[in-house]
This record gives sequence, structure tokens and C-alpha cells, in this order.
Amino acid sequence: MDTWMRLMANDGSIVFGRTENGYLHEYEGIDHPVPTGAVLSLRALTPLAPCAPGKVVALWNNFHALASKLEKPVPEHPLFLLKPAESVIGSGETIRRPAHYAGKIVFEGELGIVIGKRCRNASLEEAQAAIFGYTVVNDVTAAGLLSENPHFPQWCRAKGFDTFCCLGPAIVSGFDWRQARVVTLLDGVERQNYALDDMVFAPAQQVSLISQDLTLEPGDVIACGTSLGVGSIGEGAMVSVTIEGIGTLVNTLRSQQAVEQTQVEDERVA
Amino acid sequence: MDTWMRLMANDGSIVFGRTENGYLHEYEGIDHPVPTGAVLSLRALTPLAPCAPGKVVALWNNFHALASKLEKPVPEHPLFLLKPAESVIGSGETIRRPAHYAGKIVFEGELGIVIGKRCRNASLEEAQAAIFGYTVVNDVTAAGLLSENPHFPQWCRAKGFDTFCCLGPAIVSGFDWRQARVVTLLDGVERQNYALDDMVFAPAQQVSLISQDLTLEPGDVIACGTSLGVGSIGEGAMVSVTIEGIGTLVNTLRSQQAVEQTQVEDERVA
Repeated sequence: MDTWMRLMANDGSIVFGRTENGYLHEYEGIDHPVPTGAVLSLRALTPLAPCAPGKVVALWNNFHALASKLEKPVPEHPLFLLKPAESVIGSGETIRRPAHYAGKIVFEGELGIVIGKRCRNASLEEAQAAIFGYTVVNDVTAAGLLSENPHFPQWCRAKGFDTFCCLGPAIVSGFDWRQARVVTLLDGVERQNYALDDMVFAPAQQVSLISQDLTLEPGDVIACGTSLGVGSIGEGAMVSVTIEGIGTLVNTLRSQQAVEQTQVEDERVA
Repeated sequence: MDTWMRLMANDGSIVFGRTENGYLHEYEGIDHPVPTGAVLSLRALTPLAPCAPGKVVALWNNFHALASKLEKPVPEHPLFLLKPAESVIGSGETIRRPAHYAGKIVFEGELGIVIGKRCRNASLEEAQAAIFGYTVVNDVTAAGLLSENPHFPQWCRAKGFDTFCCLGPAIVSGFDWRQARVVTLLDGVERQNYALDDMVFAPAQQVSLISQDLTLEPGDVIACGTSLGVGSIGEGAMVSVTIEGIGTLVNTLRSQQAVEQTQVEDERVA
């Protein structure tokens, strides 16, 4: 198992690499990463989302427990929508409430699969080999928009807003998801705690089946779907999603006005 | 009005620029394009999709005539899904039937808006200024998948397959879409012929409203939705979509097996 992070240096440059004892060993490329020889102290770097996906494929109804509670049959093929690259933020960044939306915003703690190799019509073995590693996802949704229009469920819009795809803090390669649980806390109170071995489509199956539909590129992420305990995030509330062995992803929801107010205050102090 | 194309040279390099009398005047960047000084003969170049979008935002129910025929109210906000970057092909390229899908595949001739500037929470004026130009779109759909699962309409999957977003042949800046019609032929027979001034959300409105939801990046495309006359494409059938003043986008549908067979034959001749 190796832990990989993507971080920003003081000069704004972005570095990616393997972390060990408080240091980053820099690598180039997520597809066959090659060490550059540089070793940097993590203390001087600001964490970013651990990869920069071109797209995020987000699964719906991929856990037996949730399907059973919602009284939906489990699907025969992964059911998914796409979240755009611009929706991605890292741990510690702010989830911004859309300016013209006053409704419910919900968290969904999930496992994320990070693709390491271009993948099209992949067999199960090829799919397994194309997985670079795993990360933690908070798949944020403006739940009130999903059924706002009775003729067209707005999955992409409700889940595609800027900052609505929290990823991080790290990618762990060689991670054994079968033994792991997803634990989501809302302001410190446990709201989700589910076993990943309850998944309908396991990660390699997801990669193989989705790659029959569309080409997956290095850095792309598949969010594996969530299980029981999804809930609403209030203004200023903090969501932390933990998968032991990967880490804890922490994000706070703020309205646009609150974000701007904080910036003004920061400027006054600066 | 200027006409812009993106093409491949014999050495595999990609050039973008303004076309004039059979020549390409090369430019760098679609966000404030700067001439490189190079002038190339179009005859030595292979046309590609005229831009390389990070994402394609595809509208549903954006024409009064189609809404009226389907007896749906026109929406109050653009209803959209996302098509991934990997679904994009240019004029002359082959639409590939997905290997594991035997159902109906339909064409939709559409106007495409090409974004020239990063755009977030844009006013109508800012949105207008962020439009680089217009192109022609064939928004291909595996129609049988849309309602395959009764609990989750698979818009992204049905419209997101590799090769299911045909764009081209060119982008025209300063184009007056209000006077234009979209004409779609299937194997030479007219199937769609509709006026763009029947749109529910005009291009600048679309850009402004969608930019409240997600950041639009230079090169991104909004497919404006289609109107009456959508139909099924048979194996080997040719779809050509024309918007006078922009050009004609031509694509043929082939099964994976037929594409592979053609490659084998090409290799035998080579």
C-alpha cells in the first residue's frame, strides 16, 4: 500500500507524489508514474484533491442495504451520471451553496476509484490492472432539484455544481476495500457507517462495465455510490468522511455570501 | 463572420485556425486566439472536431415545437445532461454502435455553442461575450437505454458513449443563429428542417443560466437541443446535419464488427 497526494507549493505549482514520514516523493504522471527525484516536506505544501479527473462517473443504487430500504431492485448494469471536472474540490475546501438555490443540500460518503490507465472495453482483469488506487468521496447533491421538473430528473445539474465533488485527502494504491467501512460524521455526529463489501458492483466490475460505454482516462474517478444514512448539511456544517486506511475528507458548507464575507474579513486582517 | 477549424497534419500534430480561400491561418488558443503566422493548405490536413471540449452540456426540451408535440411544458431553467469529452468525433468520423447494445440509435441535429472564455455566474452580456462561435452537432442517443431501468433514466449513459457527440465541420464566429435553420438528412432524405428562432432559451441565456450552475471553460460546447423529426439510424446509414453559414456535419453509423472488418480490409490493401 502506498499513499499518494497532490499538493500546491507556495509558488502555485502543483506536485504529485508518494508520501512517507511527512515527506512527498515527487512523481510525474498518474499513468506509469516516474519519480522525479525531488523530496519535499509536506508541511510546506497545501493539499489539493488527490487527482484532477477529466470526469467523475457517479453511481446510483450500488448498495444492497440502500436498495432494500428504498425498495428498488439492484440494477443489472451500473446506473450512473457524470459530474464535471469543475465540481471537484479537495479536503479542507468549502462546499459553496449555489447562489440561486435555497433548498436541501445532502452529503453522501463514498469510496472513489481512481483510474490509472486508459480503459476501453476492459475485461475484469484489465479493469483491475487499470485501477491506480482508491480515495474518499463526498458526492454532494442539491436534492431539491432532482425532482423539480417532473419530466426530467436533473441528476447532472443537482450533483454537478462547482464544489459538489469533494475528493481526498489521498489515494491509496493496493488498498483492500473489502475489509473497509465508510464512516460519515456531520458536525462530529456519526450519520453513515457502512461496509464496502455490501456493494452491488465491485470496483473492477464497475471499471469493466463502464468502460464498455465510455473511455475512462487516467485520473478519472468513479464514485461507487452510497448506502444508508444520507442527510442534509446545514449552513456552516462540517462533513467528514473517513475510510480507515485512506484517511478523512473534511468539507464545510457555506453560502456564497458567507464565503465572500470571510474573504472580506481575511483581507481586513491581512 | 470567421470560420475556424481544427485539423490534423500528416505528422499527427493538431492545428487550429481561421480558414480563408482553402488555407488555414494558424492561431493558438481558443481563449484570445493569437495568430502564429503559419499559413497551411487545407488540402494537406485532415479535419477533426473543431474544438476539444472538456465537457458537452446537452439540453433537453429547448424548442417550442417539440415541447408542444410531446405535450410537455417548456422548462423554466435549461434542463441538461453532460456528454463526456471522449464522446466527441468530427465530421467524416464513424459513429460506433456499442458492442453490447442492439437497440435503436437516433440522430438529433442541433446548433452547438462553443465557449471562448471561462464563464461563471455570467450576466447576459458577459455570456454573449463568452461565446466564441457556433458549430453543428449530431447528439446521438442509444434511445433504448433511456427507459431501460424504470427507476433511473440513463441520460448520461444513453448519450455518453464514445463517438456519440458529432461536432463540426467548423466553428463560425459572429454567426447570426436567429436567421438559421437546422436541416438533417438521413441517407439523403430530409428528416429535420427547423428554425433556430423557435428556441426556448437563446444561446446567451443558456450560457448565463448554465454558468450559475457550473463553470464553463474555453472549448466547452453547449448542444442547444433538437426539434421535430428525430429518427432512428440504421446500420451503415449516413446522417448529415446542415446549418447554412456553418456547414454540413456528416457521420455514418457502423457496428463495432463492421468497423473492425473495414480496418482488416484497409490493412490488406495497404
